[in-house]
Amino acid sequence: MKTSQYLITTLKETPADAELVSHQLMLRAGLIRRLASGLYTWMPLGLRVLRKVENIVRNEMNKAGAIEMLMTCSQPAELWQESGRWDKYGAELLRMKDRHQRDFCFGPTHEEVITDLVRRELSSYKELPVTLFQIQTKFRDEIRPRFGVMRSREFLMKDAYSFHSDRQSLEETYQAMYSAYSDIFNKLGLKFRAVIADNGSIGGSASHEFHVLADAGEDLIAYSDQSDYAANVEKAVALAPSTERPQASAELILVDTPIQRSIKDVCELLGCQANQTVKTLLVQGSEENTLVALVVRGDHELNEIKAEHLPEVASPLTLATDQQITTTMGAEAGFIGPVNSKVTVIVDTDAAQLADFVCGANQNGKHYQGVNWQRDAEYHYITDLRTVIAGDASPDGKGTLHMARGIEVGHIFQLGNNYSKAMQATVLDENGKQKTLEMGCYGIGVSRIIAAAIEQNHDDNGIIWPSAMAPFQVVIIGINYNKSTEVKQAADRLYQTMQQQGIEVILDDRKERPGVLFADADLIGIPHRIIIGDRGLKNGQVEYKSRRAGNSEDINLDDALGFIQNKLQLQSQPS
Amino acid sequence: MKTSQYLITTLKETPADAELVSHQLMLRAGLIRRLASGLYTWMPLGLRVLRKVENIVRNEMNKAGAIEMLMTCSQPAELWQESGRWDKYGAELLRMKDRHQRDFCFGPTHEEVITDLVRRELSSYKELPVTLFQIQTKFRDEIRPRFGVMRSREFLMKDAYSFHSDRQSLEETYQAMYSAYSDIFNKLGLKFRAVIADNGSIGGSASHEFHVLADAGEDLIAYSDQSDYAANVEKAVALAPSTERPQASAELILVDTPIQRSIKDVCELLGCQANQTVKTLLVQGSEENTLVALVVRGDHELNEIKAEHLPEVASPLTLATDQQITTTMGAEAGFIGPVNSKVTVIVDTDAAQLADFVCGANQNGKHYQGVNWQRDAEYHYITDLRTVIAGDASPDGKGTLHMARGIEVGHIFQLGNNYSKAMQATVLDENGKQKTLEMGCYGIGVSRIIAAAIEQNHDDNGIIWPSAMAPFQVVIIGINYNKSTEVKQAADRLYQTMQQQGIEVILDDRKERPGVLFADADLIGIPHRIIIGDRGLKNGQVEYKSRRAGNSEDINLDDALGFIQNKLQLQSQPS
Repeated sequence: MKTSQYLITTLKETPADAELVSHQLMLRAGLIRRLASGLYTWMPLGLRVLRKVENIVRNEMNKAGAIEMLMTCSQPAELWQESGRWDKYGAELLRMKDRHQRDFCFGPTHEEVITDLVRRELSSYKELPVTLFQIQTKFRDEIRPRFGVMRSREFLMKDAYSFHSDRQSLEETYQAMYSAYSDIFNKLGLKFRAVIADNGSIGGSASHEFHVLADAGEDLIAYSDQSDYAANVEKAVALAPSTERPQASAELILVDTPIQRSIKDVCELLGCQANQTVKTLLVQGSEENTLVALVVRGDHELNEIKAEHLPEVASPLTLATDQQITTTMGAEAGFIGPVNSKVTVIVDTDAAQLADFVCGANQNGKHYQGVNWQRDAEYHYITDLRTVIAGDASPDGKGTLHMARGIEVGHIFQLGNNYSKAMQATVLDENGKQKTLEMGCYGIGVSRIIAAAIEQNHDDNGIIWPSAMAPFQVVIIGINYNKSTEVKQAADRLYQTMQQQGIEVILDDRKERPGVLFADADLIGIPHRIIIGDRGLKNGQVEYKSRRAGNSEDINLDDALGFIQNKLQLQSQPS
Repeated sequence: MKTSQYLITTLKETPADAELVSHQLMLRAGLIRRLASGLYTWMPLGLRVLRKVENIVRNEMNKAGAIEMLMTCSQPAELWQESGRWDKYGAELLRMKDRHQRDFCFGPTHEEVITDLVRRELSSYKELPVTLFQIQTKFRDEIRPRFGVMRSREFLMKDAYSFHSDRQSLEETYQAMYSAYSDIFNKLGLKFRAVIADNGSIGGSASHEFHVLADAGEDLIAYSDQSDYAANVEKAVALAPSTERPQASAELILVDTPIQRSIKDVCELLGCQANQTVKTLLVQGSEENTLVALVVRGDHELNEIKAEHLPEVASPLTLATDQQITTTMGAEAGFIGPVNSKVTVIVDTDAAQLADFVCGANQNGKHYQGVNWQRDAEYHYITDLRTVIAGDASPDGKGTLHMARGIEVGHIFQLGNNYSKAMQATVLDENGKQKTLEMGCYGIGVSRIIAAAIEQNHDDNGIIWPSAMAPFQVVIIGINYNKSTEVKQAADRLYQTMQQQGIEVILDDRKERPGVLFADADLIGIPHRIIIGDRGLKNGQVEYKSRRAGNSEDINLDDALGFIQNKLQLQSQPS
């Protein structure tokens, strides 16, 4: 491909309304153009990237035994009414009426359609398991579309659905999909983590999110440095200390802390460390007019999700009012603690491990030093109440937790019989009895992967494509290509040779200054660059530059093909 | 692929609501399933066919220099308001409102979106011409969706748009697209014709439809047997006779035809041929209260479209009432003619060629014999007024016209500045002046091609795929595959060998009677079939059957691979 025959439309200026780097770079490199809020046209260069991702996803799904098919974007309301989602799904579902005033929606997902298909087509357990997938256009009417294709309204998604006659078969396919997803993101050349999304309301690990790691990610992920354990920080388990609680060695002492309400201030005054204190949070109980005291170590944070899952605590988590605190505990927030508590006390595992600690005394302006559980303070029970932090032991016992931000690009889910029950999707089992199907669903945001990849792979000059996603592998730039016959001949010849060898090469033949061509090549992020100029040609040499490494070297023009082939071969080897 | 791992869901019964053979066969072969009126799910087998067509279309478009991109299905109303189509386009346009009550539509076509993109991205004539295309999902809210994917509401379309700074460039690209379309349908292995759709209101042949020939086609096409001339019968030009009109040799005689009003009855009475008579049709003139007499030969039919394009004739074509005929001509319809006509007479070229002909005498119960133009009857002028018939000379002077029914699967169109003017899409020309773009558009109904191909290629037993469209090239059927170890081993080994050689092969390993497997293979239409049974294996032989030719032959199992490879190679050669 020559750029003059191709629609290369880069922008020098960063578009004002683009906040994320990936959004800015996709606009600047001419991968996408905005049509309307949350609607983007894929320009020729962008579409090449989209197709590469699509094909890698397709190949790995095929390898995993999933069968591709294609459903329509538009879906009749009747099926959504049957599953109950027509009413439950909010304004994100784009509803529409056809010319006969029949209700339809522009599908954000296809559980209903596929379940309807399977209940009509399959009748026996012998036909199971089956995994069907499609790569198809979805619509979600986001209340605030933003970040370009990262959160657009219309987007390309791979959605797969598996059907089973029992739970074990579902779990096997789930594992196969987990592996396929890992293969997909490895093939794409992205750093990612499979994050536990739900600790098994259905059984096992019933849901994983796949996150591409990038600073701009919306989610904070805790992951082990020595295993594949990863979880959203809000859900990561804090491992209980493996050692026994130390013996009490100090006396209980009441100390004055007249204006010291925060852990920091108390520690400064008393000369202690935050991890030798506890903080007590008073929250509404699940029974009416009750309060519960939740205690975590001074340097830890209460995890709201863990807290509201406790049977004694009201959900959603609601803090006690100032008045409730004063009335119940006899002191203001900042001076309360578990000693002589009037309400049920539940203690985090790490807080419970302390001896001789500091806490509020339930008297305004007072704290206790040398507090010890059971001797001085009672609790109802000990449980995991806190949010994990970097350096914690990984809950699977392997390695230490690190923190990273992630962008969710995939989600696999054991649905069980959520849909099949509502829609009466059954097959005959071994005994000729109707059995409700078990179902799994597995999504990948194909368009979104591209934005996420750019968040992970860029520098100040532009995109740095992983090889598998690059729209072209090689760009040839001729200095004064349109003036120097020698440069033009050498560039054209190398270009043709590479094309013949099946290398995805683009020759930049635009009449622009070399600086503009270099800047665009950086911006677009082609992995390998060959620069041909009169000066080098005198010695039969051209310049090679790696977009990622940034280093340049002179190579012989005659060796350029082999040099590039070698680079491409190295790239395509599994890392 | 083995059928047991694939979702093969054939039907024995013909679905009641499917009228067309292609619709019946697509449902029976399990290529598609109906979701709702005009909405079809592409099953795995059907999707394979769809992708084959899609890829052939894509490759030929790429070869022709068109650049692929991808626009969204949903389009903002503003652009359609700008072009004027928001109000003009009827109920076929699926309009929808997003959560903020903004108007959108589900695109039936993308002229507005692409014109908007091009006017933003391109600024100079130097960047032209450019041809952009996409293969994308469209929606047309048909009032009566029918015939399966032949006239569905949601469908896959290839739509291309070209932009030019002048008419000549548009015509060049139009020709390139014409060639690309011909290549596409040739590669697909379909009998087709490029049909003149509009005789050049913009210039040249401004529009061609591509029709796949099939008896079920909605359009009747006249085509030459010796050139690529083809036109919808309603628009095909009737060539004027090349010889001179014979001299008058008979006297004008008034004869009694008391009850003979039709050409047939008059000919029987007078013992003449229909092609020696003329019929006269009285129609409303374009000026108020005028009538015009249109004269065609007795064996020809007046072409309404040609007639209503005459400046003297009102459009739409409206016949005179019985009362108007009697009052004006002095006789009832059936007895009128051009002799002493009180109204303007316009004569078809073939009728004008007659000498000594028969016509109504403008007296009830009377006809004239031996009528001669100019001597006995005046006319205003001679023009092409009739519908062509089989056996007419082709208007390009090459060969004879034949008739065939066709299914429109593609349309190329020189739009000129229809959209670019309304949407102010301009570039700077050589002189730095704003110039409105010239535009072409080029569509192919990708889904529809499959139905059309089946209409053209089937027999009583099912589909007969052209090789390029077949979901698999070879099916291997083992008789008692699940019982006979020898059969299973031979079938599995051949299957694996073929797969390794890159042959698209499917092994039918279902536990069904051979008759069921054969019937399904016929129905699905796989071109090549290998049947392996114990009896043949004793002699090292298997049976080969060609789906299209229908003939069977015994071949050596050891030669089967080479035999099939040879068949496939012959197929892939251009016909």
